[in-house]
Amino acid sequence: MADTYIDLPNKIDLLGKSRGAGAEELRRHNLSTVLEQVHLAGPQSRSQLTSTTGLNRSTIGDLISELTTLGLVGEGPGQAPTGPGRPSPLVSPRPEGAEVLAVELSVDSIAVATVGLGGHFFNEVRVARPRERFSPEQTVRDVVKLAQPLLAALPDPSAMAGVGVGVVGLTRRSDGFVHLAPNLGWRDVPLGAMLAEELGTPVQVANDADLGALAEHRRGVGIGVGDLIYLSGEAGIGAGIMHNGAPMLGSAGFAGEAGHTLIHPKGQRCRCGATGCWETEAGEAALIRLTGLRLTGQSLLDAVLARAEASDERTLHALDEIGRWLGLGIGNLINLFNPELIVLGGFFHVLAPYLEETINETAKTATLRAPRALARITAGGLGPDAVLIGAAELALTGVIADPAKRSSAMSSALGG
Amino acid sequence: MADTYIDLPNKIDLLGKSRGAGAEELRRHNLSTVLEQVHLAGPQSRSQLTSTTGLNRSTIGDLISELTTLGLVGEGPGQAPTGPGRPSPLVSPRPEGAEVLAVELSVDSIAVATVGLGGHFFNEVRVARPRERFSPEQTVRDVVKLAQPLLAALPDPSAMAGVGVGVVGLTRRSDGFVHLAPNLGWRDVPLGAMLAEELGTPVQVANDADLGALAEHRRGVGIGVGDLIYLSGEAGIGAGIMHNGAPMLGSAGFAGEAGHTLIHPKGQRCRCGATGCWETEAGEAALIRLTGLRLTGQSLLDAVLARAEASDERTLHALDEIGRWLGLGIGNLINLFNPELIVLGGFFHVLAPYLEETINETAKTATLRAPRALARITAGGLGPDAVLIGAAELALTGVIADPAKRSSAMSSALGG
Repeated sequence: MADTYIDLPNKIDLLGKSRGAGAEELRRHNLSTVLEQVHLAGPQSRSQLTSTTGLNRSTIGDLISELTTLGLVGEGPGQAPTGPGRPSPLVSPRPEGAEVLAVELSVDSIAVATVGLGGHFFNEVRVARPRERFSPEQTVRDVVKLAQPLLAALPDPSAMAGVGVGVVGLTRRSDGFVHLAPNLGWRDVPLGAMLAEELGTPVQVANDADLGALAEHRRGVGIGVGDLIYLSGEAGIGAGIMHNGAPMLGSAGFAGEAGHTLIHPKGQRCRCGATGCWETEAGEAALIRLTGLRLTGQSLLDAVLARAEASDERTLHALDEIGRWLGLGIGNLINLFNPELIVLGGFFHVLAPYLEETINETAKTATLRAPRALARITAGGLGPDAVLIGAAELALTGVIADPAKRSSAMSSALGG
Repeated sequence: MADTYIDLPNKIDLLGKSRGAGAEELRRHNLSTVLEQVHLAGPQSRSQLTSTTGLNRSTIGDLISELTTLGLVGEGPGQAPTGPGRPSPLVSPRPEGAEVLAVELSVDSIAVATVGLGGHFFNEVRVARPRERFSPEQTVRDVVKLAQPLLAALPDPSAMAGVGVGVVGLTRRSDGFVHLAPNLGWRDVPLGAMLAEELGTPVQVANDADLGALAEHRRGVGIGVGDLIYLSGEAGIGAGIMHNGAPMLGSAGFAGEAGHTLIHPKGQRCRCGATGCWETEAGEAALIRLTGLRLTGQSLLDAVLARAEASDERTLHALDEIGRWLGLGIGNLINLFNPELIVLGGFFHVLAPYLEETINETAKTATLRAPRALARITAGGLGPDAVLIGAAELALTGVIADPAKRSSAMSSALGG
């Protein structure tokens, strides 16, 4: 699954290294290219598709006709043209042509959504959970319970293409095995297998920050940006990295554990066992320590925002310290990854108005001039649903990579 | 040029994102796949090529015949088989079919080599330079002077395909502009353009660590390893990163400035202006400070090795400190990149026997269990020529990506 995911956008050879390709791969590549265009950019005319993909008009016609037969796109009347002549018909993604279940397991909530091709959300539910340590089994039961009514309401149950899950933990991409999710109290949980058994459909599990990065790249502030880093501020800090338009996952999917890079050898002890990790200085624990507020999650943020708006000195000083350490750590990421964009997600997003100035000033002092000049730091564009949107994109990856080969339909207890 | 380089190995579409592909791209992709196989793995039979590339026997035959016509491969008798029957003929790269000039500008030396397809070194010269600050103009003159006799001795001057240069500095890939090379005393040097003018041929310039990574991945300890980090210990510390078998360069080619990541906020002032950069604790400056030796480069290493072998306490303690800081910084890279392999290059390679144990012990304490379990730390396999080999690979990239489109022949004052 990891390979399919990585290879999605632009490779004809999904087979691996040093493989040749034949007419079949060529056809699949072109089908995938057209479907991805429509999925991401929305309704467009044949001539727009011709010009974006570089394929000729007759090839585009064949591909659209195949995608139509597969039920993945539809062609309908376009808008009235500004010039003379009839409006061109528009090719649109059919949400009900490929449907997925997106799941987010965060520290303070569980969210599920049913999503169709084109990124259309059919339904979404998010429930807060107290920060107790729910077992994996309980969590899987909760997910299934939340998902059932949404799945039952899908326009076409036979078009179910899979499940994408974002989890706040260190996750092996190949099989969705969660090695460590300290804020859920989990270690070595075969989450992908557990969910697949309950849901009776393929499940892909990914780290939440990786999905935030994917979502912001495809549908948020990072559209068209090849090199992007998404920073998730939850209880810890995670980084999701896009390089050259594709996720940079490392050899097993563990890349981006920025929260556990050493930044302060004489600093605080981290939950991971090491000392001086970035998240001990810039994460939620630091915010609690520096503000003196005995709160977590949304309550903490609400209190911090209220006090900051009232110009409470201790709170403003705390935000300054957090911003400074964020700037130093972001500086390290700029020197290492040479990104065009750093996206602030999670609580960094919420507090961005109070953090951005300090982050930018500090990052300047901590980076080399050339990479610094190319890097922009900004709040995310998708808000709190970034990870859920990324989970849907992950689940739709297989359909887009190989539109003619549909995943087996969902055939579980869920349907009835 | 940057794009061609990144896209080399496995993409049919060198055109950019969301492009369709036609029969011509398919042919080019397959030609490239076969040539790359032979270039990297050496002489092999048609049936070996059939099985590695997944192409059928008749397509392979056509492709070999085109590559033969282009003068890039030759077919000759194979070795006697171990079983009955005639030996299969072997397809071999023809070094004289595509020749390049490889250049390395390091802190203490300049090296040039002429290299042919298959990685064959025709000739190589390395001259030490005192650590004075030679101007870019003087350096270009020195390179040309060293290169002239080697170029004159090439078997087929018309097969010159380009120049690859590795430089110890922050280099923009698109045009070989060196933004900063503190150890050469350079800032904002259009090195690519300067060399291209003198040599009358396309020149690609890259950071030395990036080329070390490429070389170790293609011909050294990292063959078959998709996710690899090469650490160059020169006057500073640089990292070259391979991800999923391709160079991870960042948006402009500046990625991998690991030496300037903050690791010790209360530490030493760095030449870059910041405080506490990794290279101030684990680089040559730290080695000088900790050993008390007033030497640099090879003389420093010779003295350190001699004293370490004589069990000099201060020297061993210095190596321990360097190893500890190296382990901490490598731990950060493991958490961020989830690599399979960390390759010690430059002076870390030379001192590896004294560093490896401490590096490994420290990295263990500084990393999360899952990524740590997958990462191996080892000395490079190519020795001091890693960067030069990488420079040759870089220069050969264009030919391998598109074998039928040969670079314009070298037509400069050099030829006579």
